[in-house]
Amino acid sequence: MDNFTFWSPTLFEFGKGSEEKTGELIRLFGGSKVLVHFGGGSVKRNGVLARVEDSLCKAGLPFVELGGVKPNPRSGLVYEGIALCRKENVDFILAVGGGSVIDSAKAIAIGVPYTGDFWDFYSGKAAVKSSLPIGTVLTIAAAGSEGSAGSVITQEETNLKRAAGNECMRPKFSVLNPAFTCTLPAYQTACGITDIMAHVCERYFTNTRHVETTDRLCEAVLKAVIEEAPKVLANPNDYEARANILWAGTIAHNDLCGVGRTQDWNSHDIEHELSGLYDVAHGAGLSVIMPAWMQHVYQHDIPRFAQFAVRVWGCDMHFDDPEATAKEGIARFRAFLTAIGMPATFSDIGAKAEDIPILVKNLGVTEEKPRAGFMQLAPHDVEAIYRLAL
Amino acid sequence: MDNFTFWSPTLFEFGKGSEEKTGELIRLFGGSKVLVHFGGGSVKRNGVLARVEDSLCKAGLPFVELGGVKPNPRSGLVYEGIALCRKENVDFILAVGGGSVIDSAKAIAIGVPYTGDFWDFYSGKAAVKSSLPIGTVLTIAAAGSEGSAGSVITQEETNLKRAAGNECMRPKFSVLNPAFTCTLPAYQTACGITDIMAHVCERYFTNTRHVETTDRLCEAVLKAVIEEAPKVLANPNDYEARANILWAGTIAHNDLCGVGRTQDWNSHDIEHELSGLYDVAHGAGLSVIMPAWMQHVYQHDIPRFAQFAVRVWGCDMHFDDPEATAKEGIARFRAFLTAIGMPATFSDIGAKAEDIPILVKNLGVTEEKPRAGFMQLAPHDVEAIYRLAL
Repeated sequence: MDNFTFWSPTLFEFGKGSEEKTGELIRLFGGSKVLVHFGGGSVKRNGVLARVEDSLCKAGLPFVELGGVKPNPRSGLVYEGIALCRKENVDFILAVGGGSVIDSAKAIAIGVPYTGDFWDFYSGKAAVKSSLPIGTVLTIAAAGSEGSAGSVITQEETNLKRAAGNECMRPKFSVLNPAFTCTLPAYQTACGITDIMAHVCERYFTNTRHVETTDRLCEAVLKAVIEEAPKVLANPNDYEARANILWAGTIAHNDLCGVGRTQDWNSHDIEHELSGLYDVAHGAGLSVIMPAWMQHVYQHDIPRFAQFAVRVWGCDMHFDDPEATAKEGIARFRAFLTAIGMPATFSDIGAKAEDIPILVKNLGVTEEKPRAGFMQLAPHDVEAIYRLAL
Repeated sequence: MDNFTFWSPTLFEFGKGSEEKTGELIRLFGGSKVLVHFGGGSVKRNGVLARVEDSLCKAGLPFVELGGVKPNPRSGLVYEGIALCRKENVDFILAVGGGSVIDSAKAIAIGVPYTGDFWDFYSGKAAVKSSLPIGTVLTIAAAGSEGSAGSVITQEETNLKRAAGNECMRPKFSVLNPAFTCTLPAYQTACGITDIMAHVCERYFTNTRHVETTDRLCEAVLKAVIEEAPKVLANPNDYEARANILWAGTIAHNDLCGVGRTQDWNSHDIEHELSGLYDVAHGAGLSVIMPAWMQHVYQHDIPRFAQFAVRVWGCDMHFDDPEATAKEGIARFRAFLTAIGMPATFSDIGAKAEDIPILVKNLGVTEEKPRAGFMQLAPHDVEAIYRLAL
């Protein structure tokens, strides 16, 4: 096991009616003037925004609104948010929505106290040093951004999707009401489930040995999601199944599943080029890329993929042919994704084979600078993974 | 799933050499004058205390020492610690040791800012409202106090063992170096393992339905411990196995395994009367009491005990006789405890059948005020559990 620091100080307020505590939670963490950041009209239509703002009013908290965050959140709105916060002397950012809204809120929160261009943090030009405090009211189980220290933004002009992260960006609190996720359409629900599973898999496939406790936690989260996913797709209003998935999504990405080991994250980055270029849902892109990545790399560590097959998917172990078990696990994962309505190929998401060189180039991988991870990936590996997804 | 708040803000610094960061961590959390609290001479003999104090010196932190905490920590030393902290203007308490040292440190930390008798918090006379900040350097995987908001102290004169808890008592940081646990004798190691498993079981046996994610996490921690325990008993210097158990012990008790459900804790409280009266190790008392409790209550929910048997212990499910499976799980648990050298009966720990009425009386359970939990326990239930442990 590797040395690690685990620090997940976010307060999670979970359950029915938990949004009523939003105002007092902002007070608890020192906020006095709030930016309420959200996406399209859904939080207005379903009344979530009104209930949250009601809680702010009850706590005597003045606020300004900034809506309009789109999936794969864009830099343009971040600049707008930063300007608004400065003008209005905002000292607390509240995200009401899913991962895109939260990531956009985080970008605004680190941009406000920074004198330069916030994109510096995402392009790698500057390291994040401070942030306004952030809180979230989550409306989709997916990104895990409600408990994570990271954010992913797409630059408007270039379509480059890049990540930034720092401990100070971790939300002070997150309000998780599973009922808010019941109105999500099946496709978005399944995209979220795929993202959750990917967050665990990126940590599960490691070269670090003797990390049994973390392994078992990873398997636990995956098994819970595999058990609960069909329930919410069969009955979107299944509060209990929604609740289990919502909590699994948070745990999948606060790094509980990743401590003490090297992690991969190549599937995520390879996917980011897809959703950056074609503006497809992140979960949909992951559904196409992650099994292709598995297919490309499984021979690097057949016992680990066999463990994945047996412990997560309940496959029988072929003791005389572990590779067969390893492949069966990947096949089960593919079949599961298909069963929950997720895409499997480039054409399913409108991606094009002829763009593969652009995707590889955007990823910035070169022969001299291959990507680290579970298996080192040179440009030809990345190309092979994209081709396996055709 | 029930509504819940999950807030585990403790920073965990895990791994080899992590104690070197103690000083800077105290600085991070605002400490400027430290009480270093510890137990017997072992942390002096094995050099742990010197390494920790060296880190404090490097951070320019003045400190005073208070050693002498015994297992089942006593109120007398707490009073001494409170007086010392006041005299020396201590503003940060550092516990170097196991659960007893940490619990004693927590009692001192809440006692210093309180004008009354600190025992008021443990007797239920007063609620904890504030605490000096606490940090820990852990030397045994067991109590989980390094990440929990609770503390258990035994009152000197009465031998009553009582608990107090409040969010403000949660350690700001905990330093977890698995190497520090390698010198632990086999018996104490096994006591710790038993305590860890009990912390999960107290949360696993619930009447709340649809808590799949938490169930799976409980099972994950138990399975990891079951896998790693024989390794450390066979080879006390197995760093990797020690590391997995140490982390499992922390997760077992920061309430990750307990959210969204009612919990039990009757085995713990029934045990506390034993270790309060006879001064036996808490883990040893739990090894005697917990299987007896299971035997007494399993018929309350046979499917849950069958799930425990199948998922945790790998028993085959007897589909036409779930009770047989349930009983098999309990038998496997007993066999595991025996295999790691834990006691099974009253006589193994020097407890006496004739004291049962005293134990029941000390627990404060009456016909009018039975104990809540997985199964409600009247005095005759508690007596039956003690008798099953004879």
